[in-house]
Amino acid sequence: MVGYGYWGPNLARNFMEVDGSSLIAICDERAEKRDIASVRHPGVKVVADVEDIFRDDKIDAVAIATPISTHADLAIRALKAGKHVLVEKPLAGTVDEAKRIVEAAETAGRTLMVDHTFVYMGAVRKVKEIIEAGDLGDLYYVDSVRVNLGLFQHDASVVWDLAVHDLSIMSSWVAAPPSAVSCVAVSHVAGLPDDVAYLTIYYPGSLIGHIHVNWLSPVKVRRTIIAGSEKTIVFDDLALDEKIKLYSRGVTRKEELVGDNLIPLAYRRTGDIWIPQFDQTEALRVMAGHFIHCCRSGERPLTGGPEGLQIVRMLEAAERSVSQGGSRVALESPAS
Amino acid sequence: MVGYGYWGPNLARNFMEVDGSSLIAICDERAEKRDIASVRHPGVKVVADVEDIFRDDKIDAVAIATPISTHADLAIRALKAGKHVLVEKPLAGTVDEAKRIVEAAETAGRTLMVDHTFVYMGAVRKVKEIIEAGDLGDLYYVDSVRVNLGLFQHDASVVWDLAVHDLSIMSSWVAAPPSAVSCVAVSHVAGLPDDVAYLTIYYPGSLIGHIHVNWLSPVKVRRTIIAGSEKTIVFDDLALDEKIKLYSRGVTRKEELVGDNLIPLAYRRTGDIWIPQFDQTEALRVMAGHFIHCCRSGERPLTGGPEGLQIVRMLEAAERSVSQGGSRVALESPAS
Amino acid sequence: MVGYGYWGPNLARNFMEVDGSSLIAICDERAEKRDIASVRHPGVKVVADVEDIFRDDKIDAVAIATPISTHADLAIRALKAGKHVLVEKPLAGTVDEAKRIVEAAETAGRTLMVDHTFVYMGAVRKVKEIIEAGDLGDLYYVDSVRVNLGLFQHDASVVWDLAVHDLSIMSSWVAAPPSAVSCVAVSHVAGLPDDVAYLTIYYPGSLIGHIHVNWLSPVKVRRTIIAGSEKTIVFDDLALDEKIKLYSRGVTRKEELVGDNLIPLAYRRTGDIWIPQFDQTEALRVMAGHFIHCCRSGERPLTGGPEGLQIVRMLEAAERSVSQGGSRVALESPAS
Amino acid sequence: MVGYGYWGPNLARNFMEVDGSSLIAICDERAEKRDIASVRHPGVKVVADVEDIFRDDKIDAVAIATPISTHADLAIRALKAGKHVLVEKPLAGTVDEAKRIVEAAETAGRTLMVDHTFVYMGAVRKVKEIIEAGDLGDLYYVDSVRVNLGLFQHDASVVWDLAVHDLSIMSSWVAAPPSAVSCVAVSHVAGLPDDVAYLTIYYPGSLIGHIHVNWLSPVKVRRTIIAGSEKTIVFDDLALDEKIKLYSRGVTRKEELVGDNLIPLAYRRTGDIWIPQFDQTEALRVMAGHFIHCCRSGERPLTGGPEGLQIVRMLEAAERSVSQGGSRVALESPAS
Repeated sequence: MVGYGYWGPNLARNFMEVDGSSLIAICDERAEKRDIASVRHPGVKVVADVEDIFRDDKIDAVAIATPISTHADLAIRALKAGKHVLVEKPLAGTVDEAKRIVEAAETAGRTLMVDHTFVYMGAVRKVKEIIEAGDLGDLYYVDSVRVNLGLFQHDASVVWDLAVHDLSIMSSWVAAPPSAVSCVAVSHVAGLPDDVAYLTIYYPGSLIGHIHVNWLSPVKVRRTIIAGSEKTIVFDDLALDEKIKLYSRGVTRKEELVGDNLIPLAYRRTGDIWIPQFDQTEALRVMAGHFIHCCRSGERPLTGGPEGLQIVRMLEAAERSVSQGGSRVALESPAS
Repeated sequence: MVGYGYWGPNLARNFMEVDGSSLIAICDERAEKRDIASVRHPGVKVVADVEDIFRDDKIDAVAIATPISTHADLAIRALKAGKHVLVEKPLAGTVDEAKRIVEAAETAGRTLMVDHTFVYMGAVRKVKEIIEAGDLGDLYYVDSVRVNLGLFQHDASVVWDLAVHDLSIMSSWVAAPPSAVSCVAVSHVAGLPDDVAYLTIYYPGSLIGHIHVNWLSPVKVRRTIIAGSEKTIVFDDLALDEKIKLYSRGVTRKEELVGDNLIPLAYRRTGDIWIPQFDQTEALRVMAGHFIHCCRSGERPLTGGPEGLQIVRMLEAAERSVSQGGSRVALESPAS
Repeated sequence: MVGYGYWGPNLARNFMEVDGSSLIAICDERAEKRDIASVRHPGVKVVADVEDIFRDDKIDAVAIATPISTHADLAIRALKAGKHVLVEKPLAGTVDEAKRIVEAAETAGRTLMVDHTFVYMGAVRKVKEIIEAGDLGDLYYVDSVRVNLGLFQHDASVVWDLAVHDLSIMSSWVAAPPSAVSCVAVSHVAGLPDDVAYLTIYYPGSLIGHIHVNWLSPVKVRRTIIAGSEKTIVFDDLALDEKIKLYSRGVTRKEELVGDNLIPLAYRRTGDIWIPQFDQTEALRVMAGHFIHCCRSGERPLTGGPEGLQIVRMLEAAERSVSQGGSRVALESPAS
Repeated sequence: MVGYGYWGPNLARNFMEVDGSSLIAICDERAEKRDIASVRHPGVKVVADVEDIFRDDKIDAVAIATPISTHADLAIRALKAGKHVLVEKPLAGTVDEAKRIVEAAETAGRTLMVDHTFVYMGAVRKVKEIIEAGDLGDLYYVDSVRVNLGLFQHDASVVWDLAVHDLSIMSSWVAAPPSAVSCVAVSHVAGLPDDVAYLTIYYPGSLIGHIHVNWLSPVKVRRTIIAGSEKTIVFDDLALDEKIKLYSRGVTRKEELVGDNLIPLAYRRTGDIWIPQFDQTEALRVMAGHFIHCCRSGERPLTGGPEGLQIVRMLEAAERSVSQGGSRVALESPAS
């Protein structure tokens, strides 16, 4: 474990408890964090210098939960040292850094995975399963709202703080790579980063994604609509008991002869609603287990390097769009 | 009453029942509509030629509920004939037409009003009252969602069909004129107009408006957040009993000395929620009464010509933005 | 139509519009009600003396919507005159009167039906269908809450005003006749009837019914849980879109060996939730159509004389229980 | 701490962390529980014999979280040994035992408190505050629903398991002692205790309490209405953000001259809704702090011996009512 600040303890706990891994060492530059780690994890080696981890042959894999700007350096050194690497989201602060990490992993032939935790939520995986089974038909739009009265961050806007979740979730659902992103964002508190943002994600064809993230809403909303030609899902993460609703509703196109012309019409179709159950395992636990599995099997992770890079591409494009007044910014293809 | 199709009968009923007006004549080109009007309104003159209304000295005011493309011609002729005029929303299909109607009203010295019905809802007026009392502090954003599994229209996109309501409501709340509009819209049913749209309204300063309208949602949502520096309103038009909630919540900016630097911070403030009651009178009735009042008193209507023109400006700008890939389109100032 | 006060106009409208019937005459003792009826129904005979209806050979059936105390006299005279009879709920104010009406219908060989409108709601019929298909397993309990800030009545307590709906709905669902009723009711406004009441309905075995009715609740609730050994329905009549939810949940009994003893245990079972669609036709229209159908075919109505009598038995027993401090009052068997 | 099973660890944690107390010793008869306690609380004495606690002079107060049937013996011995005593709810399994504990506390001059945790919830205390300020006017009824798909217990019915919470909450709100209780309860799983129950609590005047508890509901509900002549509270413990709603609604009695008679009428009054904030401190922490405060100050606890005895009286009366078919069982006055 490298970095024992806000998120590190959660990762540490999960890697201690999940099958197939044991926690060997924790590194943090800050003495007070090392003290906490020592008390909590009696048998674990606690170090200040990350090289004490990279050099340790008993260690197969490293989890990095340090500030974003340090991800590239630490991840690349770990990969070069022959470790499998899990990086806290986002993979890096720039596309350039993210690409360098991905290349280092390929060169080293080691597993690289990004901790996009929300992708591993039972509800998100259930939606993925329904989409992949083709139940929704053609995808029409994905509309996501993630707002609350939030903790402001100093260095990261609401886009990097919250939209990163929606982008990674959306990317796990939609197979096609997006072609462009646009973003409008506003700051209402002088000297602090943007607190309200609207992102549009352009996919090939008529599929469109939209994300509303906001730290200034008095009510908490976590709701995503995934609409298709046949059925539509509403995913409400705050519902106690009914997080996923599958609606057998939509419109059917027909043509009608008006005079000599065939005129297109849309008819509403109504139908039952189905609320499926899904796996309730904690997302972080599932993520940790998946990482261990990929390290051992060599299987490509669901949220590996290329997926992590793609999210950074979208965040960077959103940032550029904001600075250009909300205009559409093309995304390079994931292959490049 | 000119035009007795979908909306005309509602207007007719209200002008019969509201104090201070009586229904004298109904005009419709279509014989079958005239038959219906004759049966429903025994004592009322039913005509095919609109000149029979314009020439009638006993008629002081005319309500026009015909297709949008005919508004300009009919309204201008009615004004020239010395009638007060109520036009169904939107005022016209283009800014040019809308301007000509407004000029005609000024020249004629007659009342011109647009039937932006939703502006006259008790809940919308209550929100306006709270905003104008200054309870919200500085306005931060207005976020409106109006989605459902809708009736598609042939000739008008979801922007002209639904966003017109949000634009007129928003304009009645926000005193400052918007400077620009951008809009992303997509059609998912071949040959039919755009069914999903996202509009952004740029106001001076950091105030931003955003509207999500959509005919392809399996759930109906009619929810607007009006956020301010002090308090925030959530207006849910589908709530049975609690349409308006006023939250005494927000963030407070403070500065903290970190080393030698004053760093800005945002603290969350929590507080009570208040659910005020408001006038339950049918919006259309209030609108009809306001029109009669303005005709008699010469007072400028809440949704008069300039306000109606402004909405058409925003709709036209949204349309242009869609055709330019969602880029920002500046609005000319309302005075011009 | 006999009686043109509060409910009569609704029945009149439905019998005018439903297939297979036409409205021939309306009777009301009160001149002002006759005036209203004349204006609304130009071609219909409006009379003051009910004998003008009973004697009219063109009239096959009579709907009675007069004060409860007059039901027995009017219904029996109509039946003796050879008319089919629909009586507004409840069938009568006492069990004795109700029995005399049922006997008169049997003697006359005419259709007798009670207008328990709610039994004909699409949602209530859908629940009946699910129960009769056996999907719920053994019925465990039916718990119904029907509360709001109500209009107080002078002459009828909240039990006669509101619980009559739950009793008739419950009776349409549960095949077995109840064995006893108990009821606690309280009046909080001096001189006015009981405004809060709790009824318990005892069925054979471990099935129990419970009804909470209340005119003094600031929130409106209309919710019924129908629990079974396999599945459970929650029916919320105020939900916009999801009135019926079918939960695949419950408990499973198992036995476990503890020492030498087999100990019974209950395990929770969880599962999907299903929200079925159902017929949206107005209940009153379905009821009117069913009455016409039974008159023509001789089929026994869903809410015929015996069913109406049973509801009156339960209301009278509830009244007796209230006067006895809430003790259990046995019900005579429906056959007697 | 005496008893380290299901609830003991929670109490132990709170008494370790709350100001003014430290945890000195834990007693449990079961070796495996003592092992857990030793691991979790390194500096704390862990013993098998309760006398090792009662004899320890450094110990001022004892918390008892053992099976109900052992409460009386343990509490009385602790009091005789000069300890202040906190007993897990309910105080005892019978009124006789409860009385003996209360007497022992009076004789010993020590603090006796029952852990009716829910009475210390911020929301429950806020409701108490509103009632005591007189805002509701005269109390009309308290209606409580506490249902879910529950864990069945072997030895205690749903009344002892769940209704005990509502009874203690209600008793903390209503100053007047209840005069009688009736209860209907049913078991649906052979060999297991009653799983559905309805209790009625009779207060002097027209105030009535009603409790619905249920282990067989597929949906979880925790909702209480506290209705008064002026205002009414709806307390929904599962609401995320709006647990307490205060409605300025009700009915107003008026008299109207009809002929020569003054007839009473009830008019509906509507008004705003207010959602107050309240203290979010964990109830168990508040309870622990209150116990320490009472031990030190000699102040009578909010849920002391007499209050605990009163709850046991009501539970025992409910049990007797069930065995008598739901009839009303008088309660002896709290003074006796």
